[in-house]
This record gives sequence, structure tokens and C-alpha cells, in this order.
Amino acid sequence: MDVAVLGATGDVGRQVCAQLIERRVLPTTSRLQLVGRPDGSSGRASYGLRADLVDAYDEHAPLIDVALHPDDVVADVIVLAAGRTAPARAGAVADRAALAAENHAVFAAYARSIAEHGSGHEVVVVVSNPVELGVAVVARELGRHRVIGMGAWLDTLRFRREVAVSLGVRRHRVGGFAAGQHGDDLVPLWSTVRVSGLDADERRRAVAQLRGGRSLDGFGAEIDEAKVRLGGLMVDDVAGAFDLVETWPPDLRGVSRPWLTHQSGAKTAAATANATVDLVDTVLDGRDIVVAGQVALAGEVEVAGTPLHGVLGVPVVLGPEGWSRVLLDEPEPDEARRLLATAERIDAMLRPWGLGAGAEVAR
Amino acid sequence: MDVAVLGATGDVGRQVCAQLIERRVLPTTSRLQLVGRPDGSSGRASYGLRADLVDAYDEHAPLIDVALHPDDVVADVIVLAAGRTAPARAGAVADRAALAAENHAVFAAYARSIAEHGSGHEVVVVVSNPVELGVAVVARELGRHRVIGMGAWLDTLRFRREVAVSLGVRRHRVGGFAAGQHGDDLVPLWSTVRVSGLDADERRRAVAQLRGGRSLDGFGAEIDEAKVRLGGLMVDDVAGAFDLVETWPPDLRGVSRPWLTHQSGAKTAAATANATVDLVDTVLDGRDIVVAGQVALAGEVEVAGTPLHGVLGVPVVLGPEGWSRVLLDEPEPDEARRLLATAERIDAMLRPWGLGAGAEVAR
Amino acid sequence: MDVAVLGATGDVGRQVCAQLIERRVLPTTSRLQLVGRPDGSSGRASYGLRADLVDAYDEHAPLIDVALHPDDVVADVIVLAAGRTAPARAGAVADRAALAAENHAVFAAYARSIAEHGSGHEVVVVVSNPVELGVAVVARELGRHRVIGMGAWLDTLRFRREVAVSLGVRRHRVGGFAAGQHGDDLVPLWSTVRVSGLDADERRRAVAQLRGGRSLDGFGAEIDEAKVRLGGLMVDDVAGAFDLVETWPPDLRGVSRPWLTHQSGAKTAAATANATVDLVDTVLDGRDIVVAGQVALAGEVEVAGTPLHGVLGVPVVLGPEGWSRVLLDEPEPDEARRLLATAERIDAMLRPWGLGAGAEVAR
Amino acid sequence: MDVAVLGATGDVGRQVCAQLIERRVLPTTSRLQLVGRPDGSSGRASYGLRADLVDAYDEHAPLIDVALHPDDVVADVIVLAAGRTAPARAGAVADRAALAAENHAVFAAYARSIAEHGSGHEVVVVVSNPVELGVAVVARELGRHRVIGMGAWLDTLRFRREVAVSLGVRRHRVGGFAAGQHGDDLVPLWSTVRVSGLDADERRRAVAQLRGGRSLDGFGAEIDEAKVRLGGLMVDDVAGAFDLVETWPPDLRGVSRPWLTHQSGAKTAAATANATVDLVDTVLDGRDIVVAGQVALAGEVEVAGTPLHGVLGVPVVLGPEGWSRVLLDEPEPDEARRLLATAERIDAMLRPWGLGAGAEVAR
Repeated sequence: MDVAVLGATGDVGRQVCAQLIERRVLPTTSRLQLVGRPDGSSGRASYGLRADLVDAYDEHAPLIDVALHPDDVVADVIVLAAGRTAPARAGAVADRAALAAENHAVFAAYARSIAEHGSGHEVVVVVSNPVELGVAVVARELGRHRVIGMGAWLDTLRFRREVAVSLGVRRHRVGGFAAGQHGDDLVPLWSTVRVSGLDADERRRAVAQLRGGRSLDGFGAEIDEAKVRLGGLMVDDVAGAFDLVETWPPDLRGVSRPWLTHQSGAKTAAATANATVDLVDTVLDGRDIVVAGQVALAGEVEVAGTPLHGVLGVPVVLGPEGWSRVLLDEPEPDEARRLLATAERIDAMLRPWGLGAGAEVAR
Repeated sequence: MDVAVLGATGDVGRQVCAQLIERRVLPTTSRLQLVGRPDGSSGRASYGLRADLVDAYDEHAPLIDVALHPDDVVADVIVLAAGRTAPARAGAVADRAALAAENHAVFAAYARSIAEHGSGHEVVVVVSNPVELGVAVVARELGRHRVIGMGAWLDTLRFRREVAVSLGVRRHRVGGFAAGQHGDDLVPLWSTVRVSGLDADERRRAVAQLRGGRSLDGFGAEIDEAKVRLGGLMVDDVAGAFDLVETWPPDLRGVSRPWLTHQSGAKTAAATANATVDLVDTVLDGRDIVVAGQVALAGEVEVAGTPLHGVLGVPVVLGPEGWSRVLLDEPEPDEARRLLATAERIDAMLRPWGLGAGAEVAR
Repeated sequence: MDVAVLGATGDVGRQVCAQLIERRVLPTTSRLQLVGRPDGSSGRASYGLRADLVDAYDEHAPLIDVALHPDDVVADVIVLAAGRTAPARAGAVADRAALAAENHAVFAAYARSIAEHGSGHEVVVVVSNPVELGVAVVARELGRHRVIGMGAWLDTLRFRREVAVSLGVRRHRVGGFAAGQHGDDLVPLWSTVRVSGLDADERRRAVAQLRGGRSLDGFGAEIDEAKVRLGGLMVDDVAGAFDLVETWPPDLRGVSRPWLTHQSGAKTAAATANATVDLVDTVLDGRDIVVAGQVALAGEVEVAGTPLHGVLGVPVVLGPEGWSRVLLDEPEPDEARRLLATAERIDAMLRPWGLGAGAEVAR
Repeated sequence: MDVAVLGATGDVGRQVCAQLIERRVLPTTSRLQLVGRPDGSSGRASYGLRADLVDAYDEHAPLIDVALHPDDVVADVIVLAAGRTAPARAGAVADRAALAAENHAVFAAYARSIAEHGSGHEVVVVVSNPVELGVAVVARELGRHRVIGMGAWLDTLRFRREVAVSLGVRRHRVGGFAAGQHGDDLVPLWSTVRVSGLDADERRRAVAQLRGGRSLDGFGAEIDEAKVRLGGLMVDDVAGAFDLVETWPPDLRGVSRPWLTHQSGAKTAAATANATVDLVDTVLDGRDIVVAGQVALAGEVEVAGTPLHGVLGVPVVLGPEGWSRVLLDEPEPDEARRLLATAERIDAMLRPWGLGAGAEVAR
């Protein structure tokens, strides 16, 4: 099984490549393709990255090669990490709409090349933002079951970690999913939270305490306020800003700490790469595993009586052929409201490119 | 066992931190200290890096904390990756003398703090360049057996890989060491090369063929010429430059490919971090393992009848208390000549700081 | 998260313990409980096993303790490997009914103790045979979602491997499930087979070729004939017997090779332990993963219009709280026929103990 | 790199095979050869073991094959675990002399076959007892640097663990070696003990406290007395016997707990296999690592002014070509006395086979 990383020399791309090898996700008999742009600096860096990785991991590295044109991409799993990223610095505004405009062309170029020259069974993991746009573009070209966005899985891992920290356990003892749109419009599905060692009653009490009487109806406003407070603090007192986050409830921490991290100039490359490699590993490992991811829905699941269409982050079964079923029980009313509002917002973002929920994105 | 990474937010520092966790070198019950400078951007980035690492690796991360002052460094093993690095871009001149002037103060500040506030048994792995200067500075403060420079181990891993590639095997089937000074003045000790599955006669024949009749007496001139040719090529044809390297003998490839990689803008962070984490792992794992490293010698080993004094890269036994014995049999005459010349060159670099071979650097 | 292994000193129990530690399924901060019988030899061996495991794995072993009474079992996940096993030697008849009579008491004693003294959220993985009886007994005491039989997962891994071998790929590229009863009455669900890199059409053609026009209606007779032929061969020519198996189709190989292995006196401890540790790891790792296992059904899934009741091996989603959904699409008609016949046969075996499908086994 | 396990279907052999695969010591592209005897039951079991291992580990298993004749052994590293073992049960007397008589023929047959048909660069790890006899026999055929006995490494790991337990740390924080003869005549080299985080003075104080004023001159008598006391207790109160061991000093625990474990009927297969796989991994991994092992000495090291000749467990550097240097500083006087007495005892055991220290065993 071979993997191609589009945008391999970017911060996240490099981490994805290193972790794929470090974790032995790719056996030595497989191939890792580093895909860059043909211009001077990206091309040079791609060859340099190849040399650095081989140097570091010769004992257990797969075959590594470089491709500088979309038509040359050949792999079973493709990580789409190409395109521009939001700047990582204090005060920078992450304008997902502007990113969308720039990255749409990148998504479209790669998707068309894979559709034309590919094997017909590649699975694509979209990392670049806006991840929902990437999924929509690729789904139209390759069929909707062969593409999944990494954002909801990263949000899910963060949500689980924050719940785990509040309960004093490690993350793997906490289940549950964050759905919706990657970023501020994520939907923490509190009703799906499971905690190893707690039965249903104990869990309900624990969750109620963690939520502190808040519903998701006020979550958007909480996020906005959090950013204002953190933005003010972080210029002079970054330690204080991180400390302030610790005083908040888990779902709010799960959104605001990554935002603060990104603003701190540290980026979130390790966590993003980790969630991505998780999904690649799932596709390669032959088992069917329940993850969350942005996928193009076609009405196969309903929320509050409304069938969902268009791209949305939801829990799905992911396996070697891509995602198959959606595993979403009817959520709580406040979750349903936020999920439907988010779906509408994503639809509004996608419509200008003819990729709205009404369009024929799905096969 | 706890580890501190000085300069954690730099390119190499970040990779070192990620690999320490990724490879499970640090158990969940230990502590990883990210050490930055107290100024705004480095401090912010340190907190951000901490958040990113915890986010990525919650399941098996050690306790991670941040320190922004040398006096707060507390650890069993300390990775010295702080200070300035040579710029990674085409045409940049890596002036190790200028680096030395800037990094000496960094080395001295940390070494003094560790000597004053430390436990008295820290082991320091020097990553920053000039690695020989870092070793000399730290050895004077902490005693010479508690500090080792990573450069000779990285050079050794590269040398082994190039020999392995030429023989069509994986790196772990090749033994042998690169000694001397990290960078252009390394000394590939061909007489120490061992190849799994070859007996002494077969090995001698194989090595003779790989060397193609060249002695180390012309190695310096070969490196200079290689840089000129690659520098000309890489602006327009980086693939061609990397291809050209492939046509050279193993020892020359081992020096020139990393130089080219660095010039390509890709840096060599993965390989540098890998060699560093190898050494940290060796110190933590309780076994005594033979590695190469820059250490401060005190005449315990002779080359061509001359006892070696001062800092030099040589094969040593490394264990939990630092390095103990030097394991260097009498090398071939051309190796001895290059090794002694290199020792002299290092001595000349260290003398202005009062750290020459005659000085009392060692305990 | 703590794990107890009931029957720890048996062949499979020992392997389960070793693999749990070897694979780092249990962190050093958790506890592994070795549970034996209080009589002299089992008790002695339990303490001896503890010493041997600590000796072997001190660096990364969890806390290991010994319990010699069912009431002392304390764990989050319990591996039920206690009881008698079928003799491993040529010509031995594996009489599952006789085993049932002997092991029912063992199952019942442990299940009652766990129900009385446990935390109320243990998950039990049944390894001992008849696995369906173990599941039924435990389900009645603890609730049906907290117990899963390992047999169908082992059969599934074998089925996948045989398909993989026939296609010339590694097992993790093949999906699909074996269901039904562990042993000769397994049901290879050819309709669920998936192969990485093959689209639906290619897969259908590949499966048709592997099956060679055979339906499952003749599968029982094929197994009977296989045993007769192998039984005759193996006394004089075991290599020939194993070679003969290689000439058969994948589903028949998947049943007959383990039978031959067991008869050869080698037992199948490594494979059994591997499948068991897989399930334990799944429960501990926090993710929901699709596996096959024997579970107590309550009509939540239909086959050929018949709701399934009672214990049966089927694909389910397994997570920290036990199994949740059954993921079984309508199988092909021959699969449905064999599955329903098997369900009936299991029901007939369980009825004498008042554990038939009509009984109230499930919560 | 390929590995052959002679005696693969024995208790230790099976564990060695499982751990070699489980720990990924053997990549999927290498070969593991299971070597048995051609008689019916061992042959049958070898084929059965092969099937079981492939079943368990298909995803990452190397190529596994079976050989039933010494002449067919082909590998880079050979684990000699064939021959008879001392019975594991209470009261059984482990008569190493009787074992010697039976296993000498096994050792000799394999050694001659490897010398005649081998590649000339195999490295042999001797596991079967008496390990010193195995080393002597193989050294005479293959040259002394290509064979190492596992006993001193197992004794070393146990010694380190007991010291670690007494100090409240994990084993990998403790260095130091047990030398001499495997079994009751081991020599715990207290002068070589190192503890991470303790400087020389702290370590000396800690060791003095652990030893409690005892010298090695009384160690033999302590062992004899320990066996008598444990032998009396274990029939009725095995837990009490294991508890009693806990009250003894580390070096005595290191000998008596394994003896008790073996007597308990649990055998010590996991620990023995672990130490063996450690050595195999060291030979395969390309690095030179300091271990302890039984090797055939030729006067290259002196103890108390006496050059050592003949087989003895000592610390050596082990690498891809076998062992090279002995790393033994002058031990304390009581260590030297016990070491020399042990060397004499081994010599007396080997002399009847013409393998005494005066014989020409070494190349």
C-alpha cells in the first residue's frame, strides 16, 4: 500500500511524512511519495526532504520518491495537505473564506488529475482548509465514499482529551465525537461521550457536571468571547493566557487552546499530523474503525427529522475502501440545532462553487 | 528519568521533542522540559509547542512543562539545541567561526546554570554547532565524561547508510564509525567498517572497491570540488544535483548530500533529531552502547603514537553515566593523518576561548 | 485499566499474558491479575508465572498480582480462558458437548462472582470452549453487551489470511467476516469480503474465482471429508498433510489447517492469544472498532426475514463499554441458510442449560 | 538477516520464535527457520508451530519455514535451544552433569553441520544447558568469536532487576553485570553496578547497604541454604516461599527466585526467551552493545593477575560479527576469587570432552 502526501514540504506535510515512517504505518516494502510544486523552492525542498527522511530513517523507511506534477501522483491513500495555510502569529485573522478562494484551485487540480490518471480506488484524506471545501471538490471527482476530511477527527481527539483531563484519566478512556465544521463551528456531541469504567448513570452525572448547565445554544458566543479575552492577554502574558484556558469547561477549552496555540506562533503541526496519520493508518490497517470525519452526505442519516445532505463532520465507519456507514444516533436537541445550523453554514460556503447540498456531489 | 530540551522551539528542538514522545523513549511517568528564552516570541512558542505536543500525544505523553530561564533546567539528560543555526538556503555560507562567536555565550550560560543548580549527574548531549565548542564549554563546567556531541554520531549514521546503499543492504547491517570534526572535517574510518554477512577478506575486498583507490589525503579537496559543482547545479536543476551526488563514492556522498539538503532549504531536522534521540535513548535505556561522539579527551587513546587531547569525535562506550571508554584501535595511516590534522584544527578553534587541548578542560 | 486473565497458567492464558505485556497493551501503571485455582499445582504455577513475567519484562511490565479465588477477581477487562481444553494430539476427538458439561460450572462460578463482587462495568472476553456457552452464561449474569466471544474473531482473522494468501497480499489488505459458531460450524461471509485496491467489480470477480463455483450448502460435507483425508495422512506424513491443505480453497483451508495444527500437537496458542489480545486492546484503546465475535442477540438484526435471537458470531462494533451495534447487511442466500442452521444448532446446545434463545438471557 | 531456532518446538524455542516476531526483530522480508528433529512428534509439532505463528502474525511475520535436519540449517544468527531441559517440578534435581552428557551430542551434531554447510559467518547464541559446554563445542567448530552463551545475560538482567527493586526504580536505570557460570555459580559483580542518577559516592553507599556487609565468599553457602528452606516451604505454601525470597538481599534473590519459579512448574520460558531475543536483536541491529555472555576466552583479560582461559561468563562488546572485546576492569578481591573458582569448575566440567582451558578451542 502506497501513500502520497500532497504538500509534503509544508509544516504539516513534513510532520505527516515523519510520523508515517516513525510509527511504522508504512512497511519498508511500500512507497511514500512526496508531492510538491514544480517551482524552484518547493521542488528543491521536496528533494531535500527526501534526503533528510532517508537519512533519518534508513533502517525502516519505505521507498521514498518525489513527484512535482499532479498527474504523477500514484498511491492507494492520498493525503491532501497542499495549498495555503492561515498565518501562525498573534493577531492574524484566519479568514477561511479567503483561504477557500485560494485553495479551491489546488483541490480541483489534484482531484481532476487523480480522477483522470488514478487507479479508481484511491482514498483521499483532506487536511488543508477549508476541509469541507476540499472534501466537496474531491467527492465530486472521485465519488463521495473515497474522501474524508481530517478536521472532525482532530476536533474529536481534542474534545476527548479535554473531557479526559477534567476527569483525571488518559484520553483513550474517553469516547465520543465532535462533529460539524472544523474550527469554530464544531459541534461537541456530549450525548455520545462514553467513559471507560463509568456506567450510564455515572456517566450522565459526570457529563452534567462537566457541562455546568450550559447548552450548545450559547457555545458560539462563548467562543467569540474567549478569543477576545485571550487575544488581549497573549501579547504580554502568554502563560497567563494558557492558564486562563484551563479554567474553562472542556468543550470550550477544546476550541480555544488550539486557537491560542496557533496564535502563539507554534502552529499545531504535531496534533494535526497525528490525527491525519491516525486516519491513514486506519485505511491501511485493514480493520473498520469508527472515526469522525467530514464526508459528503446524501440523506442517509437524519437529525431532528431532517435528512442531512452535503459535507458535514459526523461519525463514520472507515476502512480500506473509504468510509461506509454513518453511525449517528439522534443527538440531543441543542446538538441537533447546532448541527443543522452548521450544515447550513457549510452549504452557504460551498454554494458559490456549485458544490452546495443540492448539487450532485455524490455517487 | 527526565529530559530537558534547550532550544525546544527551534526546528531541530521540535523534532527532538516529537521523536522522544513518538518513539516512547520517555515513559508517561517521566517529564519533558521545553526550555526557551524568556523573550516574547520564544516564550509564546514554548507554551504553544507544549499545547501542540500534549494534543498530539496525550495517550502516551510524559508530563511536559516549560522553563524560560537556564536556572530552572532540571533533568537527567539535557539536549543542548539552543543557539543560532546556519541559514538553510542556496548559497548561504555556513561560517562556523561566526556561529561559534554567537553560540559560545549560549553554551556558557546554560553550562554555568547546570553546574550551579543541577544535581551533579546530568548527561548533556550537544546538538548546536559548533558542536566541539559546546562540548568543550560544558566539559569544563560539568566534567568531561558527562557531555557528548551528537555530530560524530550523525556523521556515522550517514557514513554507514552510504556504504549500505552501495552494497545494496539496509544500514543496520553496516558497522563502522565517522570520527573527527562534525561537518567538512569528518574522518570516515574505513578501517572500522564491518558488514554483516561478510568475513574479513570479503569485507576488505568490498571496502577497497567502494573506495576506488582513493586515500583520505585527497578527501578535503574532493569535498571542496563537490560543493563547487553542486552549488552551480542546484539553482536550476536540484534533481540533477541530487543525481550527481549518487555517482560519487560513499564517503563523499555522506558529506555532500547533507550539505546539498541544507542548501535546498529543507534543512536536516529529521536526521539530526533522529541521531540525537538515539543518544538520549542510549543514556536512558540502561545499556552501554558503542556510539561515536565528540568528547573531551585527556590522552587516554593514541593515534600514530600521539596521545589525543582536547575535543574530538571518536567511538566511545555510552551509558547512563555518560561516556566511559574510547574504543579506537590504531587506524590506517591516512586516517591517522586526517584525524590528527582535524584535532589540530579543532584545537585552533577552541584556543581563543581558553579551551585548547592544553587547558584544563577535563576532570 | 486493569486486566484479569482467568486460567492464566494454561497454554493460551500464558500466551495472552505475555502478549498483553509484550505489545504494550497494558501500561506500566495498570494491573494484570493472574487468576488460577487454589489447588497446589495451579497455585504454584500462578506464582511462578508471575515471577517469570516480571523477570522477562521488568522495564515495561504492569503491576502483576495473583488471585486464586473467583471472588478476588478485580479488573476492567476479564479474559475467560479457564476450564478444560480439547486434547492436542493426533486422533483426539474434540467433543464440544463433553467440554461443555465440564466448563459450564467454571463459567458459572466466575460469572456469579463477577456479578456479585464486581464493579458493574467489566467487559468479559470469552476464550474457553464452547465459547457460545461461555457467552450465554456470562451474558445472563452481567448483561449481554458486556460479553463477547473470541471465536468468531479468530475465525475471521484466519478467513482473511487465507483469502489474502490466495490473492498474494498481506492479511491487512483483506476485510470481511467469519460468523456463526466457532469451529466447524463457522460461516465464512463471502459477501462481506473487501480487498484493498480492488473496486466492487474486480472484487466480485476475484471472489468468484476463489470460491470456484462452490456454495456454502456443501461446506459442512467438505469439512468432514477434509478431516478424514488429513487424519489418514498426518500419522506418516505431516508435511504432506499441510501441503494437501494448500491445494484447497480459502474457506476450507481456514477450517482445516487449524484443525490439523491442533492435531499435530502444536496447539494454536499463539493465534488464539493474538486474537484475544486484539479484542482486549480494542476495549482498552478507547476507539470503536468493527470486529466479529460471539454475542447474545435479542432480535436486533434479521437474516432472510428472521430476527436472530440467542448467541451467534456476528460482526459488531466493539468499544470500551462492550459491544454495541451489529453491523450485518443481508447476506447471500447460502450464507443466510448456513447462519440460520448454525443458530439453531447453538440453540440446541444451550437449551439443556436453560440458555436457549427463548430464555431471558439478555438485558 | 535470517534466524534459525534449533529446538523451536520446546518451551523456550516457541517463546523465542513468538517474541522474535512480536517485537519485530525480524522484518517481513527476512526468514525464520524452525528446526526440529525428524522424528514423528517433533516434526509434526514443527509444522504445527509454523501454522500457528503464521496464523497469529500474518501481518508482520517473516517468511517461516521448517527444517528437520542439521544440514539444512541456513541463517545468519542461530539460536541453539535444542536438547533436553531439566524437569520443571517441585523436588526435581537439575543435574547439569547428566544434562551435559545428553546434550553434548546435540551440540556437536549441529556445530559440525554448521561448520560444514554454513556460510562461515553465522553467529550462534547458545540457550541450552549446560550453556558453557554448548559454547565450548560450537567455539571449537566455528571459532570463538562467533558464539556466545545467553546465561550470563539472563543472570545479569535478573541481578539488575533485583538491585532495581531494592532501590525502587525500573531495571533500565541499573547497570552492572553478573558473570561466571549460569546457575548457582554465577558471580554478581557488585563492583560494576551503576545506578542512573547516583554519583560514585552515592552509589557506593547504596551498594554497601544492599549487600549488608556480606562478601561473595559466603555466597555459595547462602544459595545452598536458601534452596533447603524454599524446598521445604513450597510444597505447602508456595506464596510463603515467594514471600520469603523477598526478604533476602538482591544477589541471593536473583538466584533463588528463578530456581523457585522453575520448581513451581511454571518454568522460566518468558524470561529466558526475552534474554535470548535481546542478544539476537543486538546481533541483528548493527550496533555494538555491551552485554554479558559465556564466551571462550584466550587470555585476553586478567583477573587478580591470572589471565583467563576457557569458557566463562564476562561482559563483552557484541555486534553483527559476534563478540569482540572483553570489557572487564579488575574486580573486587572477593569477586575475583569467586570468578577464578568458577572458571576452574567450568574447566573441570569441560575437560572430559577435551574442551578444557588448555585445549585449542579458540581461533
